[in-house]
Amino acid sequence: MRLSSRHLLGIDGLSREEIALILDTAESLAEVGTRDIKKVPTLRGKTVVNFFVEPSTRTRSSFELAEKRLSADTINFSASTSSFTKGETLIDTLRTLEAMAPHFVVIRHSQPGSPHFLARHSASSIINAGDGAHEHPTQALLDAYTIRKHKGRLEGLRVAIVGDILHSRVARSNIMLLKTMGAEVVLCGPPTLLPHSIELFGCEVAYRAEQAIEGADVVMALRIQRERMTAGYFPSLREYAQLYALTPERVRTAASDVIVMHPGPMNRGVEISGPVADGTESVILEQVTNGIAVRMAVLYLLAGEAGREETTA
Amino acid sequence: MRLSSRHLLGIDGLSREEIALILDTAESLAEVGTRDIKKVPTLRGKTVVNFFVEPSTRTRSSFELAEKRLSADTINFSASTSSFTKGETLIDTLRTLEAMAPHFVVIRHSQPGSPHFLARHSASSIINAGDGAHEHPTQALLDAYTIRKHKGRLEGLRVAIVGDILHSRVARSNIMLLKTMGAEVVLCGPPTLLPHSIELFGCEVAYRAEQAIEGADVVMALRIQRERMTAGYFPSLREYAQLYALTPERVRTAASDVIVMHPGPMNRGVEISGPVADGTESVILEQVTNGIAVRMAVLYLLAGEAGREETTA
Amino acid sequence: MRLSSRHLLGIDGLSREEIALILDTAESLAEVGTRDIKKVPTLRGKTVVNFFVEPSTRTRSSFELAEKRLSADTINFSASTSSFTKGETLIDTLRTLEAMAPHFVVIRHSQPGSPHFLARHSASSIINAGDGAHEHPTQALLDAYTIRKHKGRLEGLRVAIVGDILHSRVARSNIMLLKTMGAEVVLCGPPTLLPHSIELFGCEVAYRAEQAIEGADVVMALRIQRERMTAGYFPSLREYAQLYALTPERVRTAASDVIVMHPGPMNRGVEISGPVADGTESVILEQVTNGIAVRMAVLYLLAGEAGREETTA
Repeated sequence: MRLSSRHLLGIDGLSREEIALILDTAESLAEVGTRDIKKVPTLRGKTVVNFFVEPSTRTRSSFELAEKRLSADTINFSASTSSFTKGETLIDTLRTLEAMAPHFVVIRHSQPGSPHFLARHSASSIINAGDGAHEHPTQALLDAYTIRKHKGRLEGLRVAIVGDILHSRVARSNIMLLKTMGAEVVLCGPPTLLPHSIELFGCEVAYRAEQAIEGADVVMALRIQRERMTAGYFPSLREYAQLYALTPERVRTAASDVIVMHPGPMNRGVEISGPVADGTESVILEQVTNGIAVRMAVLYLLAGEAGREETTA
Repeated sequence: MRLSSRHLLGIDGLSREEIALILDTAESLAEVGTRDIKKVPTLRGKTVVNFFVEPSTRTRSSFELAEKRLSADTINFSASTSSFTKGETLIDTLRTLEAMAPHFVVIRHSQPGSPHFLARHSASSIINAGDGAHEHPTQALLDAYTIRKHKGRLEGLRVAIVGDILHSRVARSNIMLLKTMGAEVVLCGPPTLLPHSIELFGCEVAYRAEQAIEGADVVMALRIQRERMTAGYFPSLREYAQLYALTPERVRTAASDVIVMHPGPMNRGVEISGPVADGTESVILEQVTNGIAVRMAVLYLLAGEAGREETTA
Repeated sequence: MRLSSRHLLGIDGLSREEIALILDTAESLAEVGTRDIKKVPTLRGKTVVNFFVEPSTRTRSSFELAEKRLSADTINFSASTSSFTKGETLIDTLRTLEAMAPHFVVIRHSQPGSPHFLARHSASSIINAGDGAHEHPTQALLDAYTIRKHKGRLEGLRVAIVGDILHSRVARSNIMLLKTMGAEVVLCGPPTLLPHSIELFGCEVAYRAEQAIEGADVVMALRIQRERMTAGYFPSLREYAQLYALTPERVRTAASDVIVMHPGPMNRGVEISGPVADGTESVILEQVTNGIAVRMAVLYLLAGEAGREETTA
């Protein structure tokens, strides 16, 4: 089986079978990370441009490690918007990138839809590494991989996502993936940080953390951006923590084999308490480890796609 | 045939035959960029330091792609002047770089002559990627490559260069190359942005864009630096655009098979209008693509030189 | 013989035999740097993360060249503290890094002890590339290598270290290494820039540069951080230079075959005068060259350790 597109622009558009294919492929590639020589020749001679206009050491490094384990050549465009574009429009920047004809472009940009734009104009395979508050598909895939490893399945699980749903591409991609795979999702956060028509997501909504967490198989905290506080979305970090932090008391009411997740970087004492972050339920560092295998799987599967299109072109 | 120097410091000093050799070599290497495995082993085991003190994602990436397609190991020194030197003199910085003994140093620096200094003290092959307002030889070579691909020749063509000639290393390198290859060059820009003794270049000078563009086979716009306006070189971007922008009206008066070029990044609506930038005459994105092949050719030819010197030393 | 640890956290803890092993290994690896193909396959398929939170183009590049000459895959985390951690604790950052499971982490961080923390939690081999004012072991090793190359030995030599001893990790690591190898060390600087209990180092202390330098076999200047002046450690750069700069007059009183060293980047006219920096006694650029071989040796020896542990695990 193959992916139906040569791009990974979002979870939106992936079928249940495609998601399962990526997770299964990641499982077989995870083995490479345990070898002494952590390297396979899949992408030898292929070029990957990591075009990160928003700063992101964590996701960029995870992609870069995945690329190098597949023997790709990597180039980083980590420049800030201002120094890269110098008055140039985003469209011209993306066209310039495309004219250099890399095999893959991994793009993070604050403009929602920029990967989709690039995909329309590009001969390269485009991977969305986060576009504004829109999607972050590889994060949702690594989260699903981590859940499946612990629970053996995604279907029928109750997953609570707690925090700033409104601004979170992680939440958006996770909701779509989890619903596609048949999980039950409950969203929770201050009313100011929930999207207007949240019912359209087809998820349960909880305004109190206790209500969301009780009986959950998976609890996922989202990162709070401190700048939201000054923008008036919530009165103080202290109050946010009192109402929404994952604390031992709250987590105790979840399923007995609950796992606790966080996309990182964590604000300890804000959206998650130290004891929970470091507790036996936490799989936060496993998420980091699994991210590499999942990104290898995406590159591996898209490379197959790209190869096929080129031979028929 | 070989290049007479193991450095590429400028167009100044290159013979007609050497320029043709680089363009011919680029033509055969361009084929590598169309393969699925975009890689040849020419520079395997050789180290290239990309020493970019002035920020430049575009040129740096083009060089890095060229280096990786030739299998070189690359190191980036993209630090800003302040963080790299910390009070160190430029000479000490360059000597430190040289003590690390890379095979190649690709250098961009705001100080005119810094590549030449480095070449005098270095066992490495030095490539000038832009030194202040002095030279930018690989830009001129990729421009020539692009012109030759469209016109089949350089000799006898009429090339109009419009914009800030005074501060432009792109203009300087292009003028020298085009004159050496027998093209006719007409320079155009506001009097404040033309060099004092412009007649020494041996080019025609036009103060009105219309006059420069009429009948031209090639029209090249130069990038306007917004900081020149505040420095009083011209009153406003709006007035500059009215007098010197490449517009459809102006381009219509050029030769019927005219090509329009820009070294990028573009200020749309200032030195070039959107319809011209995106028009059928525009070869701006081809310039980006061709840059990789031309830089591969330069590295390839210099590597031959370096090899020869080392075996006889 | 092998190193007793799979990490290089400091000179502290290295035996005389281990230091000699590193220097001997560097000597055989230095030959690689003189070949046309400067590359050996020792670290093929191994990943090195260069985690430099404090900016350092010089040391980072030296490590990166060493890694590439050993065929390692390298990833740079050069982000500033603020952008990498975004409110994350150092511990969480390091654990995230560890979860990515690279073979090696080369870490520079302003927090003394951060490499030691990472080593306690990590399956990777950790190399300290400078932790605050604590240690900078590869600098001391390359200094020792350079001295040994010129003098044939370390034992019994008189080494003067002049400058800001208080804040210098270079001084700390050098003192420990030189004392372990049987050299005699004399420390010199303004009283405000000498540590409180300096006698615990077991070194001679001189308050006047003349006294420290007279008869020395090796004179090492330390870099003066300009920000120390504003913090009141000394009244002016001019006064500092008058009292402590390595000048021709002062160096003339040293041993006739004295060598002059500086870890770079230099403040010419402050801690060292131009004529001394460029004089025949200066081995400052050799230090840069030797740094690559010494860092290759450290990676080479630690890779052996890592390999051994993995096969028995």
